[in-house]
Amino acid sequence: MANPSNKEFTHLNKSGQPAMVDVSNKDITFRVAVAESRIFLPAEVREQFQGQDIQTRKGGVFQTAIIAGIMAAKKTPELIPLCHTLLLDGVDVSIVLENEEAVIRCTVKTTGKTGVEMEALTGASVAALTVYDMCKAFTHDMVIRETKLISKTGGKQDYAR
Amino acid sequence: MANPSNKEFTHLNKSGQPAMVDVSNKDITFRVAVAESRIFLPAEVREQFQGQDIQTRKGGVFQTAIIAGIMAAKKTPELIPLCHTLLLDGVDVSIVLENEEAVIRCTVKTTGKTGVEMEALTGASVAALTVYDMCKAFTHDMVIRETKLISKTGGKQDYAR
Amino acid sequence: MANPSNKEFTHLNKSGQPAMVDVSNKDITFRVAVAESRIFLPAEVREQFQGQDIQTRKGGVFQTAIIAGIMAAKKTPELIPLCHTLLLDGVDVSIVLENEEAVIRCTVKTTGKTGVEMEALTGASVAALTVYDMCKAFTHDMVIRETKLISKTGGKQDYAR
Amino acid sequence: MANPSNKEFTHLNKSGQPAMVDVSNKDITFRVAVAESRIFLPAEVREQFQGQDIQTRKGGVFQTAIIAGIMAAKKTPELIPLCHTLLLDGVDVSIVLENEEAVIRCTVKTTGKTGVEMEALTGASVAALTVYDMCKAFTHDMVIRETKLISKTGGKQDYAR
Amino acid sequence: MANPSNKEFTHLNKSGQPAMVDVSNKDITFRVAVAESRIFLPAEVREQFQGQDIQTRKGGVFQTAIIAGIMAAKKTPELIPLCHTLLLDGVDVSIVLENEEAVIRCTVKTTGKTGVEMEALTGASVAALTVYDMCKAFTHDMVIRETKLISKTGGKQDYAR
Amino acid sequence: MANPSNKEFTHLNKSGQPAMVDVSNKDITFRVAVAESRIFLPAEVREQFQGQDIQTRKGGVFQTAIIAGIMAAKKTPELIPLCHTLLLDGVDVSIVLENEEAVIRCTVKTTGKTGVEMEALTGASVAALTVYDMCKAFTHDMVIRETKLISKTGGKQDYAR
Repeated sequence: MANPSNKEFTHLNKSGQPAMVDVSNKDITFRVAVAESRIFLPAEVREQFQGQDIQTRKGGVFQTAIIAGIMAAKKTPELIPLCHTLLLDGVDVSIVLENEEAVIRCTVKTTGKTGVEMEALTGASVAALTVYDMCKAFTHDMVIRETKLISKTGGKQDYAR
Repeated sequence: MANPSNKEFTHLNKSGQPAMVDVSNKDITFRVAVAESRIFLPAEVREQFQGQDIQTRKGGVFQTAIIAGIMAAKKTPELIPLCHTLLLDGVDVSIVLENEEAVIRCTVKTTGKTGVEMEALTGASVAALTVYDMCKAFTHDMVIRETKLISKTGGKQDYAR
Repeated sequence: MANPSNKEFTHLNKSGQPAMVDVSNKDITFRVAVAESRIFLPAEVREQFQGQDIQTRKGGVFQTAIIAGIMAAKKTPELIPLCHTLLLDGVDVSIVLENEEAVIRCTVKTTGKTGVEMEALTGASVAALTVYDMCKAFTHDMVIRETKLISKTGGKQDYAR
Repeated sequence: MANPSNKEFTHLNKSGQPAMVDVSNKDITFRVAVAESRIFLPAEVREQFQGQDIQTRKGGVFQTAIIAGIMAAKKTPELIPLCHTLLLDGVDVSIVLENEEAVIRCTVKTTGKTGVEMEALTGASVAALTVYDMCKAFTHDMVIRETKLISKTGGKQDYAR
Repeated sequence: MANPSNKEFTHLNKSGQPAMVDVSNKDITFRVAVAESRIFLPAEVREQFQGQDIQTRKGGVFQTAIIAGIMAAKKTPELIPLCHTLLLDGVDVSIVLENEEAVIRCTVKTTGKTGVEMEALTGASVAALTVYDMCKAFTHDMVIRETKLISKTGGKQDYAR
Repeated sequence: MANPSNKEFTHLNKSGQPAMVDVSNKDITFRVAVAESRIFLPAEVREQFQGQDIQTRKGGVFQTAIIAGIMAAKKTPELIPLCHTLLLDGVDVSIVLENEEAVIRCTVKTTGKTGVEMEALTGASVAALTVYDMCKAFTHDMVIRETKLISKTGGKQDYAR
């Protein structure tokens, strides 16, 4: 990303104080953002997740986390002080076990004036925190790793990692 | 942590459905939890943070994130479905720049029947998300790394990493 | 309703996990939903409601319940996990005494991509719960009966009971 | 319940305006309340719920509703205007299919100055609303019937239906 | 109040960043705070409020404002970033017409570690804002004047104006 | 404002009960509202605010209040019972010291069917309450004075004071 020094901090107003960015003149476009969060699960947790029917035996943990992530995505403007409120067209959270990690993907869609990166990141983060909460009776050695944006489309500038 | 298979998933009730753990018979004790979140800031963001007067020039970002983290810690039972509501005695969030990362520490204290790990982890996570939100006009290459519990005391079993 | 087995559960995504339905491609239309909730009030409560000027003497109970119902309709997406956020054009709650029941009607209007049935049902339900709360010093023999949708218009398919 | 006319409306203050009851002088006791909500499910919905492995095929609906009910119980003082905030020791929501109805039981425990009837009733109601929301693609002929208190203990006066 | 320069800003931590004050070691005491808000109502609004039966004809406005004030007092820790969560023993809001002003008094009681000044002030303020909202179709010349603390007792230091 | 007696109370429905105004048929227009709140700060508080570098030494207070005001503006429909939910295009809160008062200005913009007066007034009020909260360790002699609308444009009728 060339020449960052030309960019302003978009959330600080002229006197250097925080403010919500004025999006009055932005176009309403269809926007999608995908974020990912990975949570390391030690062996004592993963043992509870083996077998083929993850859904049946431990679906509870993932399903509760999925619901928490969806609800948190809707709550993003209450959590992130300078986020705009948006009407979300859809929120999808999926969680799969990959080796020693649960991998959470949160996809958020809107038709609006600002992007939904923060909604996707917040949904993924809260889903990860909920996995942690559901499993913490086993161990506190879990670590939420690598919460990041995977892609965004529909705004001024697309992004893909 | 020996013999995890003897532990039950504390948030699933007898029929395998989620439930808030019954803490009726737990003692009210003084409890402290400390969590940490690290967010990688690419060079174009870090350039904005140099100089001695961080407070003046970029204090905005950290200070907004600190406030967001404190408010989120109070909101934890709304975000994490099976968390108990607790009266928090204090919440402290600090953020420092260490090499290429902003390091966020969230300390939560309560006098209650359950621990405040989730409050500390939620406070740290939302502070990190807010740093992301404040700086995302520069780049989306930021990554929230390593959200984890540092220590907890006052419950059945202390923990320190 | 013929052939229900051809319909999918709209809130479960492909892997059987819950998700908000994607309404990106739905049209924005004007939609109205009306729901009703009936609460049985035993004689000791109804005695407090006699006279011609219900508004003056006991209006307090109904008026508080009306306000609670309106506020709850606005809060629906926070309560029902997979509901979309919508901008409500209007919410109207009325309560009348009919024989041994208070009959609550909640009408919700929106101009949006999804219907407002859940908003109307939630508004009626919370109004009924508030009537219960206001009167429970007299008796706990109250029963909320028959919360149901009366009609909806403006979506793919109208409904009227 | 004898002589109801001697009881005052507990939520109206001296001038007839609504107020939260002053519980300053009430003792802190252990209190439990159980509420029930029944939702009639037409055949086209019940067909989706047959088989032995309810959890696998349709567990989603009940589990989402259980989580919604638990979260709503925690939110009760935000919904019912004159309810006190309380620290809940535990919330348990169960849902079973009985003939043509889903029967929801919500049990709430607290150690506090006021009862948790409203929390139990709110938890059951919102779980029922969530069942409705999850199944409404099949039919709107569902009806939430019979939301009522089953029992309460620990306050001035126990109640059992 | 002698020698204010010896006092520290209680909400800034050692490094000058905001933090919730640590009240771990404070005693649990019974505390009461009373706040007042006055809203100037121009003649065109006051004309709607004449007659002896304010409750009947315009009770709606005051009663809605009273309910809004009570609910806002409960929401204080969500609004004021560094406020502690407290269990409120009671909230009472009264509104009377005095000459050209509606005078709102909000009394809040708690048994806790910190005072309820902010709860009383927030309840009075939101009640005043609700009066404004209910009457703004007549004129925008209303002014909310003189929101202030009237008294507080039960903490380290009593206060009375 | 001529002939106020011809206006109806817009938030009371036909039977005299409160209701959200039906805005189904209103046009979506660009709307701006500016509100102001003034808080009197006694000398012991103002002493903490002297020097040229307000931002560094006491910026904390104002900055926290600004963030609280922005977040409260977004929360307006949760606080004011009959307010519509709106998507805010921007919220800007500024605070300056003028003689013995901190003067708070809150500007809110939307593209919607109803005005944002209440959002601007709520943002200014909560910012003032937060200044109070941050400074109350010094004195409770602060008074929030003169919360009022400065201007509104974009609706049926513009307003300027």
